[in-house]
Amino acid sequence: MSYGLLKGKKGIIFGALDQNSIAWKAAEQCHEEGAEFILTNAPVALRMGELNALAEKTGSEVVGADATSMEDLNKLFDIAIAKFGKIDFILHSIGMSVNVRKGKHYTDLNYDWLTKGWDISSVSFHRVMKCAWDKDAMNQGGSILALTYIAAQRTFPDYNDMADNKAYLESIARSFGYFWGKERGVRVNTISQSPTPTTAGNGVKGFSGFMGFADKMSPLGNATALDCANYIVAMFSDLTAKVTLQNLFHDGGYSNTGVSQEVIEAMDANNKED
Amino acid sequence: MSYGLLKGKKGIIFGALDQNSIAWKAAEQCHEEGAEFILTNAPVALRMGELNALAEKTGSEVVGADATSMEDLNKLFDIAIAKFGKIDFILHSIGMSVNVRKGKHYTDLNYDWLTKGWDISSVSFHRVMKCAWDKDAMNQGGSILALTYIAAQRTFPDYNDMADNKAYLESIARSFGYFWGKERGVRVNTISQSPTPTTAGNGVKGFSGFMGFADKMSPLGNATALDCANYIVAMFSDLTAKVTLQNLFHDGGYSNTGVSQEVIEAMDANNKED
Amino acid sequence: MSYGLLKGKKGIIFGALDQNSIAWKAAEQCHEEGAEFILTNAPVALRMGELNALAEKTGSEVVGADATSMEDLNKLFDIAIAKFGKIDFILHSIGMSVNVRKGKHYTDLNYDWLTKGWDISSVSFHRVMKCAWDKDAMNQGGSILALTYIAAQRTFPDYNDMADNKAYLESIARSFGYFWGKERGVRVNTISQSPTPTTAGNGVKGFSGFMGFADKMSPLGNATALDCANYIVAMFSDLTAKVTLQNLFHDGGYSNTGVSQEVIEAMDANNKED
Amino acid sequence: MSYGLLKGKKGIIFGALDQNSIAWKAAEQCHEEGAEFILTNAPVALRMGELNALAEKTGSEVVGADATSMEDLNKLFDIAIAKFGKIDFILHSIGMSVNVRKGKHYTDLNYDWLTKGWDISSVSFHRVMKCAWDKDAMNQGGSILALTYIAAQRTFPDYNDMADNKAYLESIARSFGYFWGKERGVRVNTISQSPTPTTAGNGVKGFSGFMGFADKMSPLGNATALDCANYIVAMFSDLTAKVTLQNLFHDGGYSNTGVSQEVIEAMDANNKED
Repeated sequence: MSYGLLKGKKGIIFGALDQNSIAWKAAEQCHEEGAEFILTNAPVALRMGELNALAEKTGSEVVGADATSMEDLNKLFDIAIAKFGKIDFILHSIGMSVNVRKGKHYTDLNYDWLTKGWDISSVSFHRVMKCAWDKDAMNQGGSILALTYIAAQRTFPDYNDMADNKAYLESIARSFGYFWGKERGVRVNTISQSPTPTTAGNGVKGFSGFMGFADKMSPLGNATALDCANYIVAMFSDLTAKVTLQNLFHDGGYSNTGVSQEVIEAMDANNKED
Repeated sequence: MSYGLLKGKKGIIFGALDQNSIAWKAAEQCHEEGAEFILTNAPVALRMGELNALAEKTGSEVVGADATSMEDLNKLFDIAIAKFGKIDFILHSIGMSVNVRKGKHYTDLNYDWLTKGWDISSVSFHRVMKCAWDKDAMNQGGSILALTYIAAQRTFPDYNDMADNKAYLESIARSFGYFWGKERGVRVNTISQSPTPTTAGNGVKGFSGFMGFADKMSPLGNATALDCANYIVAMFSDLTAKVTLQNLFHDGGYSNTGVSQEVIEAMDANNKED
Repeated sequence: MSYGLLKGKKGIIFGALDQNSIAWKAAEQCHEEGAEFILTNAPVALRMGELNALAEKTGSEVVGADATSMEDLNKLFDIAIAKFGKIDFILHSIGMSVNVRKGKHYTDLNYDWLTKGWDISSVSFHRVMKCAWDKDAMNQGGSILALTYIAAQRTFPDYNDMADNKAYLESIARSFGYFWGKERGVRVNTISQSPTPTTAGNGVKGFSGFMGFADKMSPLGNATALDCANYIVAMFSDLTAKVTLQNLFHDGGYSNTGVSQEVIEAMDANNKED
Repeated sequence: MSYGLLKGKKGIIFGALDQNSIAWKAAEQCHEEGAEFILTNAPVALRMGELNALAEKTGSEVVGADATSMEDLNKLFDIAIAKFGKIDFILHSIGMSVNVRKGKHYTDLNYDWLTKGWDISSVSFHRVMKCAWDKDAMNQGGSILALTYIAAQRTFPDYNDMADNKAYLESIARSFGYFWGKERGVRVNTISQSPTPTTAGNGVKGFSGFMGFADKMSPLGNATALDCANYIVAMFSDLTAKVTLQNLFHDGGYSNTGVSQEVIEAMDANNKED
């Protein structure tokens, strides 16, 4: 598909790591639709080197920035403004829990790791917006998005402290979104995406089993990274200009399905085995 | 337990059928806590004759009333007022879908049956409150409750048009509850209960399989009819005087659990069988 | 704007009355984006004659159909299928409360009028989908939308029984949407729109005062009918293919704003007058 | 009232400061209902000295503990266990934002202050539960509660970073509550209370104006600290044993009221002045 929906729009995309990343697919689709953007990720992620291929494909510049560092973010926005003037969209696709990585159980969290994960996964979204706010970097009609997960509303035992981080992230979207709306005419939303087999997602314990459960539950099946990229295009386009402060479930209907026939059947089959 | 929490309180309890009914257990617990009440159900339900045992045990009067008939409801409230003066609580535990009973699939509903089920399951709650409103039958501080199910928020394929009926019922609670609150100091809430093996519940296709799923999902397991009766006591007591317009999940945590370890394991086991 | 987002897509649009209608604007925008469709409304609405101008402008056919009549709906879908083959989208923008029209207070509803309004405003959505289902009229990837209002979640004293109708309508979207998703690959959603000064909206008591309140509350101000039409285009496009069973707030952020500075100031000013 | 609802139950109450505190009223009501408990607050709060009066009145011990210090919390729980054996309830009524105190606008947060406020207001709830978990300090059937505010769901411009803290707090309740339920039979909930003129609440800019707005919006008016204390008693009692992972609105109906007649009138009056 290519409609020119984002022709003339400029932005910054945080968090593309490799071609499994939602942000990677989003960059590809935004490029297809005519957008120009800067790709950014933490210096450690850039060292993998894969992002250069995406930059080349989409005619983008890569700028390293640690999203927990105001200094890095200020430099990033200065580069963006020098290149584009004001920008039209920001995608925040950043999340990491040290407790998850190190296998710490939720009932036994390490609080230093908790703080670090919260800073990276949640506070970074405030930092990015504060930076854009202070520099008056967004055009009226602009659109800011962050990616989140339904664990912010309902508990998933293996999702650990990322659930709390996502709840905080979604709250930032509403809190900051109020001022972006009232004073700058910019919208802020979060997309609550199906479990997606990104490199990060695959690191979560029990992830593939859960992917299958979610897919069986969802009337349209799990939304893929590419599906999400398309939805991100819609949310950056002018067609959705009055949607703000929302957490948008993009999940094949999972969030509003209590149970599906397939899940009942799988549970029944399992019961008969017992 | 018996604390005298409802001492001096009078009310009407709709929908006790037999000892599996939530309304039956509610009547027993309200009686234990010192309440006096009238038991009512549709004439056809009374013909089963079981309600007399409950009436005797709780020192209650049984008054037949078709909850879709304003004439019947007016008579019922006249009897209640003659007996008690103003009353303090109402429990609405009424629901029936002709389409479910007759095995009509949701994609193929019979609209006359739909209308009948809606009138019985949902509109009856408005009728009951309108009757109480017109007769100024409730004391300030009173509490009105209806029982509902989470299918009003999320779809369960076998719950059929009862899902829509419950959504309408919960909306009535908010719509009428506003006026009850502002003008009469009365609260109106719904309790969204775990699947419960009542005589009515057992009639739903695939019910027992679903009961097991819900139980495995819920951190505290399914709430029983007796648990619900205790919660109803709390909601009729003066301890909850400022809770209104709420849909209260009473489900062992089911509503806010995305998945449980047991469910993932059962799904995994089933996958391995495939 | 014109991106060709709906090129090749066919559909049916219910409920355009005059140029203030959301469905009217939606038809214009869908036409701009390349869609072809049939316009339909109740025979009494067609007698106003305004719809012909829209039909001409958009190259559409007008087919009268009472959305509470299966016979009319069957004829309508037969015409659509004869013309287009399978279709890709349906817009349901139908709502009417006899109690509102006749000034009946919510605590004093006429139940015959209640039933009639529910049949028109809510059940019609099921009827339309049942008709499309039975005739296998939707292409995979299709999108079905209905318009709703936040009164389905929170009470607005003048919105009367339309609140309950909208709650029922939204539940139908989830209930039927499950089967559309699982078996036909079609999505079903509702858009919960800002109060909009349509000819119907203006009939609600206290509407203009409320419009102003909502506008002051919303970070981006009220969404207009044209804004909504653009959002409808996005929801009919392939960019949103995995969004289903959702109630999508399109309201300038109203739904997630607790209070705004302007509202606090207006309340304060009023207090000082007292 | 005194029903003996909490007879034999032991607990810990965090956060009573002075007689305006919700935790203070909760302690009084829990005592009335037969509970025994330890009162605790930060050493700096204890220096005010008012808590001794409450301790005397309720026959309680006061133990100072900084809720961000695992060392302090471990000592506190050791004292509780030495005194009571396992306990039955915990009330977390702790919240503080340095950014609010110092008048930092949400768009201009100081991140060190943000972290400190988050640690005190949110992470402390995890710390308390981790401490109780590690020491196996709760009886089966126990009840853990934290106080929160609807700013976690909808934005209130002056509530600042406390909104995000409350969202995180509520998420902790669900995340930890899952394990408490599954493994220990303990429930965890949050109560989302009306704005309450506590010493802390009064420090929020524009608080009294907002109190009036909330009161006008709520069908039953704002819930007071005493109302909340009664609701806390209900949630600690055995009557609510299967309610878990919930955020319970205790607000006179505010949360589900879109607008009230009084608010519309106040807005209209203000418009006419303009």
